[in-house]
Amino acid sequence: MCEANAYLLQNGEEQLIMQSVDIVRPEKEGVYLQDIFGGQRMVRARIKEMYLVDHKILLEEEDQPS
Amino acid sequence: MCEANAYLLQNGEEQLIMQSVDIVRPEKEGVYLQDIFGGQRMVRARIKEMYLVDHKILLEEEDQPS
Repeated sequence: MCEANAYLLQNGEEQLIMQSVDIVRPEKEGVYLQDIFGGQRMVRARIKEMYLVDHKILLEEEDQPS
Repeated sequence: MCEANAYLLQNGEEQLIMQSVDIVRPEKEGVYLQDIFGGQRMVRARIKEMYLVDHKILLEEEDQPS
């Protein structure tokens, strides 16, 4: 299975916010995440970078400088 | 390996633009993609949705309504 873990970058630290993420969809309010179990979450953030081979999704808060 | 294939949605059709994508990074000019072989590409598009279990990255042109 090729799901990934989603981390939110806050104050320079990466916080794990969701494991086993399957679907990632940027929306106006933030980023929608859905895991392989059907769990859903909307995060007020944007995608900073994704490393698929490392199973890692890195999000950052919207008001941070990119 | 958990790389994915990147498709660009154009006129309702999905065109395969890069295989074996490892890194995905939204930037001002578009979306930066890097494959597992080190190949790089900048696509004038935005991320529409990603399906990690299905190894699929779906991009859409920036001027299309979301």
